[in-house]
Amino acid sequence: MTTPSRHHDSLFLRAARGEDTATAPVWFMRQAGRHLPEYLALKERWSFWEMVRTPEIACDVTLQPVRRYGMDAAIFFSDIMTPLPAMGVDIEFSPGPVIQTPIRTRAQVDALRVPDAAEIAPFGTDAIRLITQESPVPLIGFGGAPLTLAAYLVQGSGSKDFAAFRAFLRAEPNAAHLLIDKLTELSIRYLDSQIEAGASAVQIFDSWAGLHDRWIWERYAMPSLERLLSALARHNVPRIYFALDAAHLMEQLRVLPAEVYGWDWRMPLNEVRNRLGARAVQGNLDPAALLADPQALRSEVERVLRAGQGGAHVFNLGHGIFRETDPANVQRALETIRAFDRHS
Amino acid sequence: MTTPSRHHDSLFLRAARGEDTATAPVWFMRQAGRHLPEYLALKERWSFWEMVRTPEIACDVTLQPVRRYGMDAAIFFSDIMTPLPAMGVDIEFSPGPVIQTPIRTRAQVDALRVPDAAEIAPFGTDAIRLITQESPVPLIGFGGAPLTLAAYLVQGSGSKDFAAFRAFLRAEPNAAHLLIDKLTELSIRYLDSQIEAGASAVQIFDSWAGLHDRWIWERYAMPSLERLLSALARHNVPRIYFALDAAHLMEQLRVLPAEVYGWDWRMPLNEVRNRLGARAVQGNLDPAALLADPQALRSEVERVLRAGQGGAHVFNLGHGIFRETDPANVQRALETIRAFDRHS
Repeated sequence: MTTPSRHHDSLFLRAARGEDTATAPVWFMRQAGRHLPEYLALKERWSFWEMVRTPEIACDVTLQPVRRYGMDAAIFFSDIMTPLPAMGVDIEFSPGPVIQTPIRTRAQVDALRVPDAAEIAPFGTDAIRLITQESPVPLIGFGGAPLTLAAYLVQGSGSKDFAAFRAFLRAEPNAAHLLIDKLTELSIRYLDSQIEAGASAVQIFDSWAGLHDRWIWERYAMPSLERLLSALARHNVPRIYFALDAAHLMEQLRVLPAEVYGWDWRMPLNEVRNRLGARAVQGNLDPAALLADPQALRSEVERVLRAGQGGAHVFNLGHGIFRETDPANVQRALETIRAFDRHS
Repeated sequence: MTTPSRHHDSLFLRAARGEDTATAPVWFMRQAGRHLPEYLALKERWSFWEMVRTPEIACDVTLQPVRRYGMDAAIFFSDIMTPLPAMGVDIEFSPGPVIQTPIRTRAQVDALRVPDAAEIAPFGTDAIRLITQESPVPLIGFGGAPLTLAAYLVQGSGSKDFAAFRAFLRAEPNAAHLLIDKLTELSIRYLDSQIEAGASAVQIFDSWAGLHDRWIWERYAMPSLERLLSALARHNVPRIYFALDAAHLMEQLRVLPAEVYGWDWRMPLNEVRNRLGARAVQGNLDPAALLADPQALRSEVERVLRAGQGGAHVFNLGHGIFRETDPANVQRALETIRAFDRHS
């Protein structure tokens, strides 16, 4: 049981615990990163991976959107692939992750280590300690869902259809189960260490949930998600589960032990709340709306706000912010969100 | 009203009209193309675009999977982008479609022509006449859904997130509506001409339905799909509507005037049938199953067959066949499909 943080009564944590706040707290996925000029200035000197691995820089980048916009939560500047090199996997960012030797055999899975928490990403927990000292708002730790991490390890890189991964789940079920078990244990240790270093909430990114039919999902994803989320319960911090493109999995997802469901832009939040039985929902402005004119943007933000009424709502995008986003439009969205009385 | 074709009583057309046949007819999306050695042999001599534009070659490629596998339907070897050059758009295939000058302004939309049917793709209707003379099975004509065609024209190429297109729909609603109107009219003329040349059914590919939230969908996609499908009704041939990644749009899609709904691999066909109120369903084996071992493949094919029972079912994949598919596995899938008694 973690000691309640100094952010315990913050707008973000109240909503994430299920409180129907009068104003929706807001943060944006990928808010720390490439749409910000102050990030791009750092990027001229350091690579993505160097920034992630240098606690002072990762702390600075994490807090850039908090300073510029007054976001209600910070999210730790990192990548879902960050814990994987400690397993013995060679990953490059060019700019997406590329696995030098994709995992395709049982022998390769057997050779993967599950390191102790302290070995996984010490630079990351060091960054979290710096951020939580400096940040005026709660920090969200995060990790990838085990099946989403496995998708990259087996495919070897991002892909439109992850054909090799989908074939692997069928051709090598024993190796696939063992791989997901190892990734689940790694994720538990990694997220434990983030919370112990000061994260006030955690988000599981299931970016590739949409690849799978229900049969695959029930065999490979559900047991690992239930184990991961249950193991994190002892910390008593909000657990946010974000699935992309998972409208076909709602009956399955509603039983997950999570305080908050993050959802993509495709479905209105009132329906997300009802179909998932969610205590709190997070989302779900289409990031493309931030590329529109101010009037269209305002009307889309208000539509999301109205759909979020009737329960706890953490405002967010439905997917990561696009790099071409003008920060002035982020500011406009925040003004609309903060002017909106959710109890009206 | 087209004269009933000599294939009127074929297994495919009976199921497509809603008959609960004892055996499911089968064809596979992208069955004519790059997984076949006899196609790759032609590909060494001609480019994709040369093959599409040469009726004799397009006919030969269309019939390759019919000859090799005995598929129950042929699908015209072409691409959803084929009708667009006649509008005055410069497209290259490298190998995916690349638009030299993406359509981003009202002036560019105004400049697009809507050619007469005979001008759109005469090589295509010539190929259809050859195919329908030679083919032992019915031929399916096809086109892209107007909003999916617009996605490529505006984005300029395939893309993971089509950010520029999603921004265009918000920033330029008048230009977007006009573009979709022109693409709808073009699609009606193009599909009319395919049916008049001999196609016994048509499929609308809505490959990028999954990009959009419901608000965008109702404004831009629904009116164009209703107009397109309604205009085709007079031919009295089955209209197949295939949407990829559209589980969030099922309430909207159920009102479309289509005889058959094609669906991707993500959701079981019994649920697709119920939620869409579909007379006939088409699908939906995960194409990755064709990369698995014979036992796993057989069990997945049988799962799809069982989910398809209780009404008309055209067996297909849930998306295009992967290029790395071994033709022996296609043959195995067909054996399982044909050995299965749907009335058992």
